[in-house]
Amino acid sequence: MALTLSARCLGIAPSVTLAIDAEAKEMKARGEDVIGFGAGEPDFDTPEYIRDAAKYALDHGMTRYTPVPGTLSLRKQIAGKLLKDNNLSYEPTQIVVTNGAKQALFNAFSAILDPGDEVLMPAPCWLSYPELVRMTGGVVVEVLGDESNNFLVDADMLRQHVTPRTKAIVICSPSNPNGCVWSREILEGIAQLAVEKGLFVISDEIYEKLIYDGLTHVSIASLNDKIKQQTIVINGHSKAYAMTGWRIGYAAGPANVIKAMSAFQSHSTSNANSIAQYAAEAALKSGDEIVKNMVQEFDTRRKLIHQLINQIPNLSATLPEGAFYIMMNISALQGKTYQGEPIENSMDFARLLLGAQKVAVVPGRPFGADHHVRLSYATSQENIKNGLARIAAFVDSLE
Amino acid sequence: MALTLSARCLGIAPSVTLAIDAEAKEMKARGEDVIGFGAGEPDFDTPEYIRDAAKYALDHGMTRYTPVPGTLSLRKQIAGKLLKDNNLSYEPTQIVVTNGAKQALFNAFSAILDPGDEVLMPAPCWLSYPELVRMTGGVVVEVLGDESNNFLVDADMLRQHVTPRTKAIVICSPSNPNGCVWSREILEGIAQLAVEKGLFVISDEIYEKLIYDGLTHVSIASLNDKIKQQTIVINGHSKAYAMTGWRIGYAAGPANVIKAMSAFQSHSTSNANSIAQYAAEAALKSGDEIVKNMVQEFDTRRKLIHQLINQIPNLSATLPEGAFYIMMNISALQGKTYQGEPIENSMDFARLLLGAQKVAVVPGRPFGADHHVRLSYATSQENIKNGLARIAAFVDSLE
Repeated sequence: MALTLSARCLGIAPSVTLAIDAEAKEMKARGEDVIGFGAGEPDFDTPEYIRDAAKYALDHGMTRYTPVPGTLSLRKQIAGKLLKDNNLSYEPTQIVVTNGAKQALFNAFSAILDPGDEVLMPAPCWLSYPELVRMTGGVVVEVLGDESNNFLVDADMLRQHVTPRTKAIVICSPSNPNGCVWSREILEGIAQLAVEKGLFVISDEIYEKLIYDGLTHVSIASLNDKIKQQTIVINGHSKAYAMTGWRIGYAAGPANVIKAMSAFQSHSTSNANSIAQYAAEAALKSGDEIVKNMVQEFDTRRKLIHQLINQIPNLSATLPEGAFYIMMNISALQGKTYQGEPIENSMDFARLLLGAQKVAVVPGRPFGADHHVRLSYATSQENIKNGLARIAAFVDSLE
Repeated sequence: MALTLSARCLGIAPSVTLAIDAEAKEMKARGEDVIGFGAGEPDFDTPEYIRDAAKYALDHGMTRYTPVPGTLSLRKQIAGKLLKDNNLSYEPTQIVVTNGAKQALFNAFSAILDPGDEVLMPAPCWLSYPELVRMTGGVVVEVLGDESNNFLVDADMLRQHVTPRTKAIVICSPSNPNGCVWSREILEGIAQLAVEKGLFVISDEIYEKLIYDGLTHVSIASLNDKIKQQTIVINGHSKAYAMTGWRIGYAAGPANVIKAMSAFQSHSTSNANSIAQYAAEAALKSGDEIVKNMVQEFDTRRKLIHQLINQIPNLSATLPEGAFYIMMNISALQGKTYQGEPIENSMDFARLLLGAQKVAVVPGRPFGADHHVRLSYATSQENIKNGLARIAAFVDSLE
C-alpha cells in the first residue's frame, strides 16, 4: 500500500493566522521593527498568585496522573464558577477539563458528529471551527452575518439552513473575530429553534469576561432546562487569566455527552497538565479583581483602535462589544494596487501591508470575511498608535 | 434530528485499567488497606532539577503560546537526544511535541489512516492502541504472540496478516504489558517486511530507558534509511523522568507526516503546556544519572516480584526484560471458584481478588490476554511482598 496521508489530514487548511504570525516573528528575529496585531493572547503575564499556586503544586507532588476529566476539586471549583457567573448548575460528572478550550471543542464534535452531520455556524467565525468540524467528519454550513447588523446571526437566519442532517449550532459570544455579543433575546430565539429541531448547541464562552459598555454575558444554557440539556458549554482560562500557554479549557454539559468526551480523551491525550490544573483552581478561587483591571485596559485600547481606524480614509470598523479583536473593513481598497501589485482580497492586503510597513494583521478570508482583516488589540496603546499610523501611510501609498 | 452520540464515541471501550484504579482509590478513600499494582507510572516524584526548571519558566514569562509543534529549542534538544541515544538524525521540522505520547500516537494514526485501513498489532498490547486505531477509522488486526516465546511477534507471523488494505505496523519495545524487548534481528525482519510492502511503522519507545540484564534498546528507524522514511518514532518524558502528570510526548518521522500531525494538533489542542516544555528540555539536558538509579531500583523489584509469583502454586510469570510490568499467568486457576463465584477469565480474577484481599491488578483481557493479569512493579518492595502474600492467600482459598 502507498505511504499516503489520510484524506482527513490532507484536507486541513494550514492556519493562516499562524503563518502570518510566523513570518512576523521571523522578521523580528532578523532585527526588523514589526508591529503585530495577530496575537490571540493577552499581552499580560499570568498573574503572580496563579504562578505561585503552580510552584506549590510542584513542591507537593502534584506531578502525577490525575483523573482523565480533571481533579475532582478543580471540577467542583468550575461547577461553582458556572453557578456564580452563569447561573448554571452542574455536577462534577458533567464537567471535563481539557488541554485548552480547543480540545473541549474537538472532543465535543467527536462525541456528537457522525460522517455527513451538518453544523450551523454563524460567520465570520473563528477559523478553527470549520476545520474541527471537518476533522471529525461533519459538514460545515456557514450562515453569514452582516456588518451593518454587527455580524449577528439570529434564529430566522439559521432556520433557513436547517435540514434533516443538521446536528448542531455553534455560538461564540463575545465573538472571535467580530467582537459582537449575542443578546438574551437573540439567544432565546436560537434556543427555541434548537429545542424544536432537536439540535445540540456548542456555546463557546471563552471571551465572556472581556465584555464592555456595561453589557452582560448570557450563557444560552441558562435560559431554560430544555436548552441546557442540549448545550455543551465551552470555556477556559487562556483569555480571562492570561494563561494561554498552560492549556486549560473545559466543557460542561449533559452527563452522557461529557462521559463520551472523557472516554475519547482517555485514549487521545489523558488528563490536562496536573500542575496547570492546580493553578487553574487557584485562578478561579481568587475572584475577578485582576480580570477587571485587564478589561479596563482593553476597553481603553478598544476605543483607541476603533477611533484611529475610522480616521483613515477608505477604512472603517464597527465598535466591538467584547473579546479583543476588531474587524477592519478594507472593501474600499479592493481593486487598488501597491507598487503595481493588486489588492484583490484580504490575503493580498495583509501580505502587502506586512511587506511595505511591517505591520502584521490577520486576513479575514479563513474566517469567512474576505472584505475584512482582523486586528487584535491585546497590545500596548503605543503599538496601536504607531501601527495605525503605518496602516494610514500604507493606505495613502495605494494607487 | 435526535440528540444521539456519534458511533465513533459509542464504540470506545471504557478503560478497564482506570475502572479498577478508580475502585481501588475509592476503597482507599474509605480507609481500606488496598495494595495497588495497577498504576502505569513511576512511584518517584519528578526530580527536583526538573521542577526547578519549571519554576524558572514560571518566573520568566514562559506562560504564553509556543509554536504548535513545540519550542524550537526543545525540538533541537529532542533531536540531540535521538541522535545520541538512538543514532537517529532528525531536523526540528521532523519533530512534534505533543500532550503526552498518547497524543503523538493519536495524531500519527489520524495522519495516516483512512476509513478501513488495517493496522497490524503484535498482541497482547497496550489497551489504548486498538481504541486509537478505531477512533481514527482504522481496523485493528491483532497478531498474538506466545508466552513460551516471550510474547514476541516476528515478521513471518505479521506477513500472514498483510492484505492490500494493510497500512501500518505498531511496535512497542520494551513492551507494555509484556515487558519483552524486540531484538535487532527481529526488528530487521519487520523492517524488511515494511519496506517490501510499503507500510508505515509506528514505533512506541516510551519505555526505552527501562531495560534490564544489559540489553540494549534498538529503534527500528535506526536500521537503515529506507525504514527510517516509513517510521514514526513515539517517545515522551512520563516514564523515564517520572513526569506522567506533565503530559510531554513527542513524535519524530518523515517531514510530511510530522507536518500533517502538527496541522491536526494546531486545531485540536495547540501546543503542549509551555512550562512543561521548558522542564522537558531541562530533563534531557541533565544526562541520565537519575534515570539509572530508578532503573536499578526497578530491576530489584522486577526480580523480587518474578520470584514471588513463581513461588505461588498455580501461578507463573516470565521474567520481563523491560518496562515495569509483569504478566501473571492465571490459566491454572480458571475454572476454580472463590466462595462459590467462578473464575472464568481475567476479569473475574481481578474483581474477586480486589474484593477478597484488597489487591488491585489489571485484567489482561483488554490487552488481548485473558489468561493473564498485569501487575505493575512501580511500587515499593514492601508493597510487592505484602501484595504477593495476599495473592498467595487468595489462591489458597480457591476451590
